Amino acid sequence: MATHKLLLLPGDGIGPEVMGEVKRLIGWINAQGLAHFETEEGLVGGAAYDASKQSITDATMAMASAADAVIFGAVGGPKWDSVPYEARPEAGLLRLRKDLGLFANLRPAVCYPALAEASSLKREVVEGLDIMIVRELTGGVYFGEPKTITDLGNGQKRAIDTQVYDTYEIERIARVAFDLARKRRNKLTSMEKRNVMKSGVLWNEVVTQVHAREYKDVQLEHQLADSGGMNLVKAPKQFDVIVTDNLFGDMLSDIAAMLTGSLGMLPSASLGEIDATSRKRKSLFEPVHGSAPDIAGKGLANPIAMISSFGMALRYSFDLGALADKVDAAIAAVLAKGMRTADIKSEGTTAVSTSQMGEAILKEL
Amino acid sequence: MATHKLLLLPGDGIGPEVMGEVKRLIGWINAQGLAHFETEEGLVGGAAYDASKQSITDATMAMASAADAVIFGAVGGPKWDSVPYEARPEAGLLRLRKDLGLFANLRPAVCYPALAEASSLKREVVEGLDIMIVRELTGGVYFGEPKTITDLGNGQKRAIDTQVYDTYEIERIARVAFDLARKRRNKLTSMEKRNVMKSGVLWNEVVTQVHAREYKDVQLEHQLADSGGMNLVKAPKQFDVIVTDNLFGDMLSDIAAMLTGSLGMLPSASLGEIDATSRKRKSLFEPVHGSAPDIAGKGLANPIAMISSFGMALRYSFDLGALADKVDAAIAAVLAKGMRTADIKSEGTTAVSTSQMGEAILKEL
Ligand SMILES: CC(C)[C@H](C(=O)O)[C@@H](O)C(=O)O
Ligand SMILES: CC(C)[C@H](C(=O)O)[C@@H](O)C(=O)O
Repeated sequence: MATHKLLLLPGDGIGPEVMGEVKRLIGWINAQGLAHFETEEGLVGGAAYDASKQSITDATMAMASAADAVIFGAVGGPKWDSVPYEARPEAGLLRLRKDLGLFANLRPAVCYPALAEASSLKREVVEGLDIMIVRELTGGVYFGEPKTITDLGNGQKRAIDTQVYDTYEIERIARVAFDLARKRRNKLTSMEKRNVMKSGVLWNEVVTQVHAREYKDVQLEHQLADSGGMNLVKAPKQFDVIVTDNLFGDMLSDIAAMLTGSLGMLPSASLGEIDATSRKRKSLFEPVHGSAPDIAGKGLANPIAMISSFGMALRYSFDLGALADKVDAAIAAVLAKGMRTADIKSEGTTAVSTSQMGEAILKEL
Repeated sequence: MATHKLLLLPGDGIGPEVMGEVKRLIGWINAQGLAHFETEEGLVGGAAYDASKQSITDATMAMASAADAVIFGAVGGPKWDSVPYEARPEAGLLRLRKDLGLFANLRPAVCYPALAEASSLKREVVEGLDIMIVRELTGGVYFGEPKTITDLGNGQKRAIDTQVYDTYEIERIARVAFDLARKRRNKLTSMEKRNVMKSGVLWNEVVTQVHAREYKDVQLEHQLADSGGMNLVKAPKQFDVIVTDNLFGDMLSDIAAMLTGSLGMLPSASLGEIDATSRKRKSLFEPVHGSAPDIAGKGLANPIAMISSFGMALRYSFDLGALADKVDAAIAAVLAKGMRTADIKSEGTTAVSTSQMGEAILKEL
């Protein structure tokens, strides 16, 4: 059996707690002989800053580069609000994305039937919702240069950020999105602001070309990002796969996640290009939720998003789709039995802690 | 009685229809001697392109500049999808905003009790919602240079947009927002992405300074724009006034509008700086909804957002607050009587056309 190398980066806040439940799952998979994972662990975010004054060290980056997949918890918290900008906790995550070339961020927004009531939206609007947001993750305003604050004198400063997109960056993310649409309901919606941004004009043009050349069988639609956001709130079930740039993807995927009422449940995958020789790709898996410093260390965190992110690793990095299906089924089963962490607790359900939830999922498996 | 000069720019799609109802209202105000408005009319957007191959002419810009307020309908539609980029319908609106210096865009998101059911959100989440979004309107990625698409050869192009903010731009929009908060529930939430964007860092810093220097009595809070978007969907009533940049404001105000279930009802005001000598400011008023080409010319459009935008003109440009209150009350009264245009029609209410709605509001007055 092949050995898969994982780098675990728990990070800050509830990161270590939810990662604990993934470690338990990995131990079980190894013990059962279903696969063979070798794990290393490293520091990222505030935890790394406390140890090394950097949000991630070169040594940890080297480990990430050598791993078959990175499993990431969450970073940040008020404790690090005033560390130097270049060393802020988020910088560690951004460096991982950029240096590993993880250009494709897959964020499913699924409304678990058992949780439809937890949404602020009406049940009929979100029940059965199943969207996949494909966000470009290594370009755009996140990384474009210049990115500066200049002192102009007279008490005036000027801040500049730059949104840059090249044709190839749009092509490759479009292909990821079209391929996913083919495996789903065959519909792709591309979102940009071509009426205001030149990057939106190019985005629209390139997605249209890739469609015409390679994916005529997929239904393609374009929406402006602002009305796309409106439509997400008004009638989200009209969407199957959405493809959009880094910044719009940040906003829109968070909104889509919130619609489902299942924020503590949603995973994400960040994927690099497939290497022509090894047929492997770099990858990182992280929950959509943040580090939630207010509830850290109390056993209150919901480990499902983290476990489900590991499920995406099984599916997208290790070709263990059947095992991933079993993990998903185990999650659905414990929810059906009424087990709930505090974030999704409602009347008539049973409150469980982080570790009780992790155990219950393992027991289902 | 002073004469107020208005420039009416109906634009495209349903623009002319809804503007028709404002003209009727202006006629009535003049006839009653409540104020004295002189109106001129001009072309903008696709209508201007058809006449002059430009989305707005210099002559119309001169009229806008000379007017005490511009009343704007809506622009755009599939008919103009392939006109040259510089002449696209939206360019006319963007030029008006930029050349008139309309840096402060006020977008109230109010949930009319009679319409709470029309929202995709649960009644208890949106009933009584009353937010004011203050969007910076003449800076950021909308106007920053470079803004280009370059051919790199080899089938590759590079698109660049630039987000630029100077201290003074952030200061003046923050003051508008703090002043509004003082007249409302005294709470301001500032949104940016300081964890990724340098403009977010400067935005956060300047808003914090303006608060400390001039508005200590107002409660100030900062949220990252992505989690701010989430909070808008999850629990919008936590907000009073929100201040944010041009692009985030575009997205967040559309989402806030959609929450209310009252998109066809929401007005907006765009204001310039107060001239030190004349004490006047340039201003433009437009509905939040677009040109809705699919229903144009059918008498189906809801004129309330346009009428209510004119109400904002009465309040913000002509110091006719009492008359504005009457217009708002008349709108609430026709809704309470169950009159509804198609967009907000629900069981047990009476369907009316654009002009019937306009007439009914006048009758209430
Ligand atoms: C933590 C932050 C830098 C990050 C982002 O803006 O991309 C987060 O919001 C996300 O969506 O993963
Ligand atoms: C029409 C378009 C240019 C405009 C914008 O993006 O600002 C619109 O969406 C708005 O919000 O007023």
